[in-house]
Amino acid sequence: MKAVRFIETGKPAQLADVPAPRPGPGQVSIKIAGAGVCHSDLHVLDEELGLKGPFVLGHENAGHIAALGEGVREWREGDAVAVYGPWGCGRCRTCQTSAENYCENHASLATMGGGLGSDGGMAEYMLVPSARLLVALGKLDPVAAAPLSDAALTPYHAIKAALPLLTPDATVVVIGIGGLGHMAVQILQALTPAQLIAADIDDSKLEHARKLGVRHAINTRDADAAAAAIADLAGPRGATAVFDFVGAQATVDLGARIVGRNSRLTVVGLAGGVVHYAANNPQYGCQVTIPYWGSRTELMEVIALAAAGRIRAEVEVFPLEQALDVYQRLRDGKIRGRAVLRP
Amino acid sequence: MKAVRFIETGKPAQLADVPAPRPGPGQVSIKIAGAGVCHSDLHVLDEELGLKGPFVLGHENAGHIAALGEGVREWREGDAVAVYGPWGCGRCRTCQTSAENYCENHASLATMGGGLGSDGGMAEYMLVPSARLLVALGKLDPVAAAPLSDAALTPYHAIKAALPLLTPDATVVVIGIGGLGHMAVQILQALTPAQLIAADIDDSKLEHARKLGVRHAINTRDADAAAAAIADLAGPRGATAVFDFVGAQATVDLGARIVGRNSRLTVVGLAGGVVHYAANNPQYGCQVTIPYWGSRTELMEVIALAAAGRIRAEVEVFPLEQALDVYQRLRDGKIRGRAVLRP
Amino acid sequence: MKAVRFIETGKPAQLADVPAPRPGPGQVSIKIAGAGVCHSDLHVLDEELGLKGPFVLGHENAGHIAALGEGVREWREGDAVAVYGPWGCGRCRTCQTSAENYCENHASLATMGGGLGSDGGMAEYMLVPSARLLVALGKLDPVAAAPLSDAALTPYHAIKAALPLLTPDATVVVIGIGGLGHMAVQILQALTPAQLIAADIDDSKLEHARKLGVRHAINTRDADAAAAAIADLAGPRGATAVFDFVGAQATVDLGARIVGRNSRLTVVGLAGGVVHYAANNPQYGCQVTIPYWGSRTELMEVIALAAAGRIRAEVEVFPLEQALDVYQRLRDGKIRGRAVLRP
Amino acid sequence: MKAVRFIETGKPAQLADVPAPRPGPGQVSIKIAGAGVCHSDLHVLDEELGLKGPFVLGHENAGHIAALGEGVREWREGDAVAVYGPWGCGRCRTCQTSAENYCENHASLATMGGGLGSDGGMAEYMLVPSARLLVALGKLDPVAAAPLSDAALTPYHAIKAALPLLTPDATVVVIGIGGLGHMAVQILQALTPAQLIAADIDDSKLEHARKLGVRHAINTRDADAAAAAIADLAGPRGATAVFDFVGAQATVDLGARIVGRNSRLTVVGLAGGVVHYAANNPQYGCQVTIPYWGSRTELMEVIALAAAGRIRAEVEVFPLEQALDVYQRLRDGKIRGRAVLRP
Repeated sequence: MKAVRFIETGKPAQLADVPAPRPGPGQVSIKIAGAGVCHSDLHVLDEELGLKGPFVLGHENAGHIAALGEGVREWREGDAVAVYGPWGCGRCRTCQTSAENYCENHASLATMGGGLGSDGGMAEYMLVPSARLLVALGKLDPVAAAPLSDAALTPYHAIKAALPLLTPDATVVVIGIGGLGHMAVQILQALTPAQLIAADIDDSKLEHARKLGVRHAINTRDADAAAAAIADLAGPRGATAVFDFVGAQATVDLGARIVGRNSRLTVVGLAGGVVHYAANNPQYGCQVTIPYWGSRTELMEVIALAAAGRIRAEVEVFPLEQALDVYQRLRDGKIRGRAVLRP
Repeated sequence: MKAVRFIETGKPAQLADVPAPRPGPGQVSIKIAGAGVCHSDLHVLDEELGLKGPFVLGHENAGHIAALGEGVREWREGDAVAVYGPWGCGRCRTCQTSAENYCENHASLATMGGGLGSDGGMAEYMLVPSARLLVALGKLDPVAAAPLSDAALTPYHAIKAALPLLTPDATVVVIGIGGLGHMAVQILQALTPAQLIAADIDDSKLEHARKLGVRHAINTRDADAAAAAIADLAGPRGATAVFDFVGAQATVDLGARIVGRNSRLTVVGLAGGVVHYAANNPQYGCQVTIPYWGSRTELMEVIALAAAGRIRAEVEVFPLEQALDVYQRLRDGKIRGRAVLRP
Repeated sequence: MKAVRFIETGKPAQLADVPAPRPGPGQVSIKIAGAGVCHSDLHVLDEELGLKGPFVLGHENAGHIAALGEGVREWREGDAVAVYGPWGCGRCRTCQTSAENYCENHASLATMGGGLGSDGGMAEYMLVPSARLLVALGKLDPVAAAPLSDAALTPYHAIKAALPLLTPDATVVVIGIGGLGHMAVQILQALTPAQLIAADIDDSKLEHARKLGVRHAINTRDADAAAAAIADLAGPRGATAVFDFVGAQATVDLGARIVGRNSRLTVVGLAGGVVHYAANNPQYGCQVTIPYWGSRTELMEVIALAAAGRIRAEVEVFPLEQALDVYQRLRDGKIRGRAVLRP
Repeated sequence: MKAVRFIETGKPAQLADVPAPRPGPGQVSIKIAGAGVCHSDLHVLDEELGLKGPFVLGHENAGHIAALGEGVREWREGDAVAVYGPWGCGRCRTCQTSAENYCENHASLATMGGGLGSDGGMAEYMLVPSARLLVALGKLDPVAAAPLSDAALTPYHAIKAALPLLTPDATVVVIGIGGLGHMAVQILQALTPAQLIAADIDDSKLEHARKLGVRHAINTRDADAAAAAIADLAGPRGATAVFDFVGAQATVDLGARIVGRNSRLTVVGLAGGVVHYAANNPQYGCQVTIPYWGSRTELMEVIALAAAGRIRAEVEVFPLEQALDVYQRLRDGKIRGRAVLRP
């Protein structure tokens, strides 16, 4: 079958012919309907992350069950499924709660997941090492659902941890209304009545936020003016929660500046920013965190949100064969929403 | 009456005669039994914190109600009470939950509390602006209780926020077994069955921890060896929670190094350390926080712990007149446990 | 001033002339803009609740500050405020967290609140015994806000405790779409993405629910059919949370029947139903609770929801002089939405 | 191999020769070191629970891994393990969080677990259908650990849900200091500083509680006197949490009587008692619940508690061949602590 492969750090991805996988005991083979193309693939290709090639790329995957390995009784061939991305040991206490994104044994695992050390979904078939890593899609279109497994799950996980703070009298700020940020504003509107502010340096992104129902959209190119406008909206309490989906030094600094006491600053974007936390700066009682992806049950909740029509990823579909071209367009900033490869 | 006063930044504290206060409507006057002497008093005296003198020092106070202002019906003269230290606006949502330490209007308040902008407890009498700031001591000795209002409340608040993480299979590390740290290890042992590690650069402090029941006490002078020893005890999961009561760069860095994923790093000590949080360093899903003091109901819980004999502050009592000498001994590191002034 | 008074159990309410109150130290006098007329007033008038008359009725009150007693510094004359209804001791741990509805000393208090033992708001002026019992309304119309202090606060409190269960894949059922129930469906839609089902025996109430945006509205006259329809929508998990705003035996039994494991059954209505909880019936892990009113900070959150336009009580306004007639209409089931008296 | 089997409802258990199991793909075979004998076995034998025999009894099991089915990679032969008892579908959201005790699909499962519809541990070997159902024991003795999987896990789960209420100023009451109750008092002392009261009608059980460190032990034969004594200790707030390990009508009624507002009444014992919850009786804001067993991660926490020496089940060991005699002694009330069968 055709597959898009990582060869080694610094080399371009490669379109190759590889044998289709066969599931062993406990494993499942998926006929891929869609594989999302993610910015972090570029990190995988370009940076030394300790991943050993070759392996098939693609860590945002959905499709239909093609074959069940021996001993898998809880699924049926043909079931539409999303593939949970961060593969843990499956046995530690944290994995047992479904939060494999924080697997206690991650340091000793040979892979971070399909497309991240193991064969991923940019191919006709994908081997999933355990049925526990599948989430039922029901009637949800697998092509549209593929990017949810990362672009929606990651902000969902970040937001869920902050929910107890997000009472109706609180203010929440989303910085960066791109692939993850545009999911975050939808998720926040579905989950909390807190006052929502979208922030970006790009007016078209702010326009996008407004179309998604956000009332307060603030351009942050002038950081002082933006901070003042946010302070005006938030009042003396300041922002209760900030989610930074850019993660550059400028956005991280802005987040640290606008959060109040007893608040939460969550940095999701990985553009090199560092939060410097000293006494009362950000303010006392702020919780600063950089989360990673999400849990299996959170993916179930994301799928339920999408099935109920509360969130929707904007998807542009390409044939698998155009993968290398799509990566180039991603590098050039020419992909709008999420690109999904269809084998 | 005799009182120890802050005059202005950079000037020494002053022993002076001042008029005893009379409570107005809603206020309460306390006959002070003990006023704790805290390291942060030295910050107040030496550093520009925006506090305007003169005012009576002392923010760890306990005593007996001397007089009730008009309209105060819920207390009686003679009641033994601790005085809650961080005074908020009393009206915002956060103050209404008793967490005046995170008052939403703190920036517009003229004072941070008694001894911190308003007259505190290093005097025969102290004026408390509202009955809501008192906590009943019952049979607890006010002299022993005075330091609880800060030296126990501050670690208690820090620990309480981490409790859901501190399951029996978790590891918690306390760095710095001084005034607050030796309360922290007692509080942790009362509240959680997690594996407890005490860390300090001073062997006598470690010995103190052992006497308080801590099994694992590690000298951190050699940071690499200490980190390795902690990793050994914690296993692949790493430390689940770290409480740093020193807050120097070395301790903050050690904390950031030993916490695992999905953990909590709490810096309480204010020795100038800065936590630099970048992607996965500290590990993903760590929550970094620098809390401030505690809430009124947390002080009630601290008093209940002390009344039940579960925690005890080590106290050395001095007459009020020796205050200036006690401050000098504190600067010289010659105070063991907590110094308390008795008027 | 004119006032509507409770005289003694079993006697009708009385329209009388009483002196206007003057606030003592710490107290506040409110010029009433609106006083909600609540079904529980009929309980107060008819049943032996241990309340000692005479006192002015009305426990859902809002207006403007007329006069401040000595020592009240945090409010200004003319401020628009809602009056928090369940008055506790103000001093116990629970009151300190603002949950005076669960005051630990309630058994020894002479009053349950204004209009419930103390003078309430069915008069030109009302005396509030402490400034802590006021919540700022900002630009919200006090006449529309008055019923929020009970008809919205009570369901809000009930719902808030269940929020962690109400993930996007959960099902929540509201039984009884009357005064509190029609607020509950609005609150649930603002706070959670869970699948929402409205249930009532009256088709016009179900129509009301549909107009408020509820997709699934089920008539419960045939309990078997209703239970089957709810089970169909909820799937094998059953209902995750049920809020019963009727509280009759039939509704309580229906709730107990439809909740799944690890769920919550909340009975708010007081129509005499009793939940009988035996092994696995309701199912194992269900939490059954009968809450009471809500906390001060929850009222702040309710006001914020209303100010943001997320919830709205349907209000019919009457002059204070028609109070006795309004009570009769309430007995006759002729009030639609909430009646509010305007002095 | 020798095995103790359930044949059909109303018939006595049978000692029989059955073939030793062989693990299929994903399954694990355990060489049993100890199988606890539980009161609920008598329910299984005597009452119509819908279980279809014959199957091997024993639902509290621990031992060593004898053989791994194909595809099981995360365990090794010889590992000491406890077997998690309540077997769910393994796929639903609740099972994914490890709480198989509340499996959403339990109604459509053919078995409740090993010894409860499937072959259990009263035999030389036991087949476990999935590696996810094992918990590592480390150095803990499997014979001593066997009863922890039920007699400690069940109270642990009940207690854990109440922990946020169990602050140092709260009062917790354990009714029934038998097999589960004597574990509960140990667990409570390890997890919370709340004031602990043990209650029983049997003075020797109360003496047992005192030996375990409980200070307040109250005989409940005279319910009025007991309620008064508990009220005295708890103060006006009443008991914050009550755990009833008897579950008779008398104990359930006592529990309902002593809990305060905003509290939790948990009934674990299944002696036929029914909680009748009407308005304010038990008091408003009480959460009444009848939980079932516990989750996989809670069993990990229980094992960690035991490994740290914080809890210990009292165990009397018998050879497997004496099983029928042990059941008789259990019926006769002649077993002290927990009986464990050793094959």
